[in-house]
Amino acid sequence: MAITDSATTNLVSVEPGAIREDTPAGSVIQYSDYALDTSSRFAGGAAWIEGEYVPASEARISIFDTGFGHSDLTYTVAHVWHGNIFRLGDHLDRLLDGARKLRLPSPLTKEELASIAKRCVALSQLRESYVNITLTRGFGARKGEKDLSKLTTQVYVYAIPYLWAFPPHEQIFGTSAIVPRHVRRAGRNTIDPTVKNYQWGDLTAASFEAKDRGVRTAILLDADGCVAEGPGFNVVIVKDGRLVSPSRNALPGITRRTVFEIAKAMGIDADLRDVTSQELYDADELIAVTTAGGVTPITSLDGAPVADGTPGSVTVALRDRFWALMDEPSPLVEAIDY
Amino acid sequence: MAITDSATTNLVSVEPGAIREDTPAGSVIQYSDYALDTSSRFAGGAAWIEGEYVPASEARISIFDTGFGHSDLTYTVAHVWHGNIFRLGDHLDRLLDGARKLRLPSPLTKEELASIAKRCVALSQLRESYVNITLTRGFGARKGEKDLSKLTTQVYVYAIPYLWAFPPHEQIFGTSAIVPRHVRRAGRNTIDPTVKNYQWGDLTAASFEAKDRGVRTAILLDADGCVAEGPGFNVVIVKDGRLVSPSRNALPGITRRTVFEIAKAMGIDADLRDVTSQELYDADELIAVTTAGGVTPITSLDGAPVADGTPGSVTVALRDRFWALMDEPSPLVEAIDY
Repeated sequence: MAITDSATTNLVSVEPGAIREDTPAGSVIQYSDYALDTSSRFAGGAAWIEGEYVPASEARISIFDTGFGHSDLTYTVAHVWHGNIFRLGDHLDRLLDGARKLRLPSPLTKEELASIAKRCVALSQLRESYVNITLTRGFGARKGEKDLSKLTTQVYVYAIPYLWAFPPHEQIFGTSAIVPRHVRRAGRNTIDPTVKNYQWGDLTAASFEAKDRGVRTAILLDADGCVAEGPGFNVVIVKDGRLVSPSRNALPGITRRTVFEIAKAMGIDADLRDVTSQELYDADELIAVTTAGGVTPITSLDGAPVADGTPGSVTVALRDRFWALMDEPSPLVEAIDY
Repeated sequence: MAITDSATTNLVSVEPGAIREDTPAGSVIQYSDYALDTSSRFAGGAAWIEGEYVPASEARISIFDTGFGHSDLTYTVAHVWHGNIFRLGDHLDRLLDGARKLRLPSPLTKEELASIAKRCVALSQLRESYVNITLTRGFGARKGEKDLSKLTTQVYVYAIPYLWAFPPHEQIFGTSAIVPRHVRRAGRNTIDPTVKNYQWGDLTAASFEAKDRGVRTAILLDADGCVAEGPGFNVVIVKDGRLVSPSRNALPGITRRTVFEIAKAMGIDADLRDVTSQELYDADELIAVTTAGGVTPITSLDGAPVADGTPGSVTVALRDRFWALMDEPSPLVEAIDY
């Protein structure tokens, strides 16, 4: 059967209902002639849980997984735009690097993880998708087992409709942030923010404080008063036509890397280093960068406008070039085989 | 039908299989004449998930619950010993206090939570049980929803066989600990350790370091070099016949409270205050206290014996009195209505 690349095509080659039952746990499913079916139970969201493809709405995990019970996991989120998945290989490299730091060996290779992720997108039929790949320490034979040596790593993958960390209009017109008064970002000698994780207590508290103070989000400092990151995004500062972003206590974001590469291609210097709170308040432009939202100007900080309070020219140039990349043939993008 | 109090009795009053289907989501089940049945599908572990009682082996949660996806939750663990549940009310008071700090309102009252917890134990038929009650920020109508204002709090409860944080023989003969070289406990201005949580990145890293250095567990310091806590336990120091335990960056443990009450009843002073690393190494006796394991002497620190390397007399007296409390009628214990 022909593979189609149009979301409007409606061909059925495999009975979707058969997949779950027929799949041995732990195996990687390969079926090349599964084609588009808008009535598919996977349409709108698909997941891979314990070796089975399931509709996202049925994606459930054991309450005894230490990924829940100790948040003992790492994950990444890649995105699909106009049917292309962006930098999946780079996301998986970072994921596997984080897993090594956690001593959490992946039971699947990079290639197998990529194959499952792309298959989830294909099953979901989504042209714009948020693709989550998570490795957890897993669970043991005994309910509630927490002995690290008795746990089996689990892999969870899902593709769901693209999520915006910021409403799309804020990416155009700018968003607002505070520096929280009451919470700092956990430092890398406690819970390492360079390994992408769900230990969001500090980020969630900061989000509540932002809400209380009437703004969208927050930029957290670390214990030394240096800029760290926000809830789900890296912070990039533009000053005197150059970019800087924190090298400490912040995720090495894939979107940030892309923005730095774009800047360098435009002849704009971009450095990762310690960034002080003074530099944050003195910025010409502030930018939030994230897979779930792209490149968003932060035009208000602690209730005051950043520069003149409108998106800056560097931010706008980076944002527009970022989205253009999604549609250009390059090693960064790969078309999903729907 | 008579209520029995023997785990060997085998009476069936309700078809267990009927319970799941007949239970409206969100309701609290009350059925007083459900009695022991060793062939019950709940025997050995029971859970309450999204308003339904299910066997623990079937206890699964949505992958989109932000309790998983942002570890946005608080929980407590109470224990059942010889058919009595210990200090359930105190556990629930602390749980609800933590939930308030997280701005995570419980959809159920303290009394409803207590009823569900005890029912899980009764269904499990366990006379010694580890009873977990968790409140998560939950999930929204949209898959992957993370907007705090669009999430519905979830309650998860389960009763499973009692888990030992330390093997029982170590509670008698002593266990071993290190102070980690590479990780500190997250401070309360980041992820507040006084709200019981699963954000265990620092504790898990410490556990790996302990394993690498050939010992059971770890005692973490905070960023200021003060004693915080260990993975799943409070630290109590005995010096010159007095107890001290950290007031900062440590959970206000229910077992620790019990040990302090026991000490005071024995005429032993017990104080919560800042405890320096110097005091840790200069201790006469070191004790790990936790619901999942009671009162365990730490007889080795960083490879050297604590005092003479055997359980100290204060520790032994506290441990024995602690376990005796489980069988004595008092406001602290409540018999499970099996």
